[in-house]
Amino acid sequence: MSPKTPPNVLITGFEAFENDETNASWEVARALDGSICEAALVRAVQLPCVFGDAIERLDEALRQWRPRLVVSLGQASGRAEITPERVAINLDDARIADNAGQQPIDIPVIPGAPAAYFSSLPVKAIVRDLRAAGLPASLSNTAGTFVCNHVFFALMHRLATLRPLAGTRGGFVHVPCLPEHAARRPGLPSLALQTQVEAIRHLTRTALSVQEDARESGGQIH
Amino acid sequence: MSPKTPPNVLITGFEAFENDETNASWEVARALDGSICEAALVRAVQLPCVFGDAIERLDEALRQWRPRLVVSLGQASGRAEITPERVAINLDDARIADNAGQQPIDIPVIPGAPAAYFSSLPVKAIVRDLRAAGLPASLSNTAGTFVCNHVFFALMHRLATLRPLAGTRGGFVHVPCLPEHAARRPGLPSLALQTQVEAIRHLTRTALSVQEDARESGGQIH
Amino acid sequence: MSPKTPPNVLITGFEAFENDETNASWEVARALDGSICEAALVRAVQLPCVFGDAIERLDEALRQWRPRLVVSLGQASGRAEITPERVAINLDDARIADNAGQQPIDIPVIPGAPAAYFSSLPVKAIVRDLRAAGLPASLSNTAGTFVCNHVFFALMHRLATLRPLAGTRGGFVHVPCLPEHAARRPGLPSLALQTQVEAIRHLTRTALSVQEDARESGGQIH
Amino acid sequence: MSPKTPPNVLITGFEAFENDETNASWEVARALDGSICEAALVRAVQLPCVFGDAIERLDEALRQWRPRLVVSLGQASGRAEITPERVAINLDDARIADNAGQQPIDIPVIPGAPAAYFSSLPVKAIVRDLRAAGLPASLSNTAGTFVCNHVFFALMHRLATLRPLAGTRGGFVHVPCLPEHAARRPGLPSLALQTQVEAIRHLTRTALSVQEDARESGGQIH
Repeated sequence: MSPKTPPNVLITGFEAFENDETNASWEVARALDGSICEAALVRAVQLPCVFGDAIERLDEALRQWRPRLVVSLGQASGRAEITPERVAINLDDARIADNAGQQPIDIPVIPGAPAAYFSSLPVKAIVRDLRAAGLPASLSNTAGTFVCNHVFFALMHRLATLRPLAGTRGGFVHVPCLPEHAARRPGLPSLALQTQVEAIRHLTRTALSVQEDARESGGQIH
Repeated sequence: MSPKTPPNVLITGFEAFENDETNASWEVARALDGSICEAALVRAVQLPCVFGDAIERLDEALRQWRPRLVVSLGQASGRAEITPERVAINLDDARIADNAGQQPIDIPVIPGAPAAYFSSLPVKAIVRDLRAAGLPASLSNTAGTFVCNHVFFALMHRLATLRPLAGTRGGFVHVPCLPEHAARRPGLPSLALQTQVEAIRHLTRTALSVQEDARESGGQIH
Repeated sequence: MSPKTPPNVLITGFEAFENDETNASWEVARALDGSICEAALVRAVQLPCVFGDAIERLDEALRQWRPRLVVSLGQASGRAEITPERVAINLDDARIADNAGQQPIDIPVIPGAPAAYFSSLPVKAIVRDLRAAGLPASLSNTAGTFVCNHVFFALMHRLATLRPLAGTRGGFVHVPCLPEHAARRPGLPSLALQTQVEAIRHLTRTALSVQEDARESGGQIH
Repeated sequence: MSPKTPPNVLITGFEAFENDETNASWEVARALDGSICEAALVRAVQLPCVFGDAIERLDEALRQWRPRLVVSLGQASGRAEITPERVAINLDDARIADNAGQQPIDIPVIPGAPAAYFSSLPVKAIVRDLRAAGLPASLSNTAGTFVCNHVFFALMHRLATLRPLAGTRGGFVHVPCLPEHAARRPGLPSLALQTQVEAIRHLTRTALSVQEDARESGGQIH
């Protein structure tokens, strides 16, 4: 009978986007909601695929759950693997409109903030552990310049500057499409929801248990 | 107590190849072995990844099971979807050695046989039905020139020339890697075994029930 | 003053297609028109990108020039190299309409003809010689199912069945886009016209001088 | 007889790397050395493909030429277009060893410097002008984590912090392989040297003449 509340892990996913009816990132987050991972409780929150609004919703969730760990998920059409992102850049440059019809071009996510933040997830250890578990994963050096990077940058800025979040680790992870998406867009790689959920469960465990990131090569020549 | 024996469906898959410990094609075939599909009984047979021997093993299975339908499966590293093959060509040209160390270069699969055979599976209907079921699929116009095409060509030659197999439909289908393979070869697309098994079950159903193939565009410009 | 007429080499290219104003295959053929290669005279002929009409124009050219060698060129958006095609299949299956608005689906190029013909160009020697000259090339096992394959199949059927063409070698070669095409379709590989012209000049020389094709591995696993 | 010295443009390229005998980036830089562009004089300097040493050589060149504009070039195997880089990150993470056998993993390029710098080239205008000239180009959001990004980051840090370089614009641009490289690595895209030289000449002109970058969408969703 422990009187202690377990710490929270916040996992965010996005609402559906463009012509899709579902978004892999939210399906994964939702599947993990309420589960226990390394004695922490997973809280899933859906973010709108809208510049600005997505950050507001994230802020609410940060205030509400005071998480020890934040994993933001986004769907990356065309990628075949689970890809933890290494760096968030202070730039919005939308190739297409967001779900509210906004299309910001070349403006900072947060004026006056640094040009970039690195993820504070142990990204190398995550990739190593996922592969060891038979799950396809690679490190990514760009989260793009759309709402995913927007949320990622805002998250890292909060973690770096807000007192109550001192010590909270966080980062962004892109996941592939689901088979149902690929069925409508021939040629696209995809991974079953079950595979993705298993991968994000593993990733959360590594993020909660590994203190020092692995020092393994994971770079890209270009 | 029905005195009638159900018709057989033969599904072949390959043994592991190169440095892998498993082969998606055999894992899928094995998972379907013994199942009932449209009142037919699925018989799974593993083929060696060896020029010549693979055809011998296929011949044995054809004699033993007198199948109404034959679906030969092979694993295609790098493809992201279930890809029914359209055409088998009378050519062995091995980029690497097979599991017995053979590497035939530019010789016919069967001397004197035609240059090619088209699949007798309803390939367009199969792709249509898989996509409708939310499963990623595309038609392929080349099965390569390795053991997969070798088996495909021999199969179609048997179906075209052997009396007892008159009326038997058959063809070849490439399946993607499993996640466990992609975990060891970064960047590779993959699909969970469960997704693949579901797809081949659907495909078998379509192959048994559709008489006339769909007339939908599925071609490639090049 | 030689009383002997030099033998002809026929090189065909296609007219522009879809939204392009030029077609790399015709630009290359045109650049070589009238040149001398291994004591043969190059005759360039433009084919319409139209099922049926393209073959008629090819037939006229074959009658007019009685070539010793025929190299049909086509542009392959998305390919990065010069790709000699290995096999033509007896199938028209148009993913999009041709320049006359026709879109045949799953009909033979020539009813009653064989399922396929192999190129009679020394395709392995061609790839070997191009690479040795510092020019990017790979063998292709599918010419698609559009007008390119249509012309390729008809050409090989003529060479196989028409008496006056006995001894004439021929085949099909896909070439990449030009940089000007890639400038309008981001992400597409391309090669400068000059690079392509040099490659097809090399290829013609190999096709005229090599009797026995090289026995080097050039196959694809799938 | 003008008493005025023309301003300098510094274009750097790398020495050959891995098993190649040439490096497209240096071939392009060298071809432009000594040419006049918008009344400025192009100075080409070769950098070693070595962490640390490359920056030292860059520093020497900056001191020697006091350039008004710096364009650092690097070769990106696998890319098909001229790709101006948007952002340099403060991280060395070498997947393979450099030409001196060093393989730094997850260390900053410059300890204490910001996490990233954005290019000060008008990257959108550059892509727009290249495409308008029929030259394939796209904006890139990652320069990798190898020697290219290392030089790019150091360059931007110098431009941001060194007094004598106030007002100097600079950035990094990846160029594709040359056809001679692709001839030895099947499947790789490439562009003729002449096409690349023409592109970098255009790019230099745009960089010297455009004050305000274009506000056109050039972002990536991920």
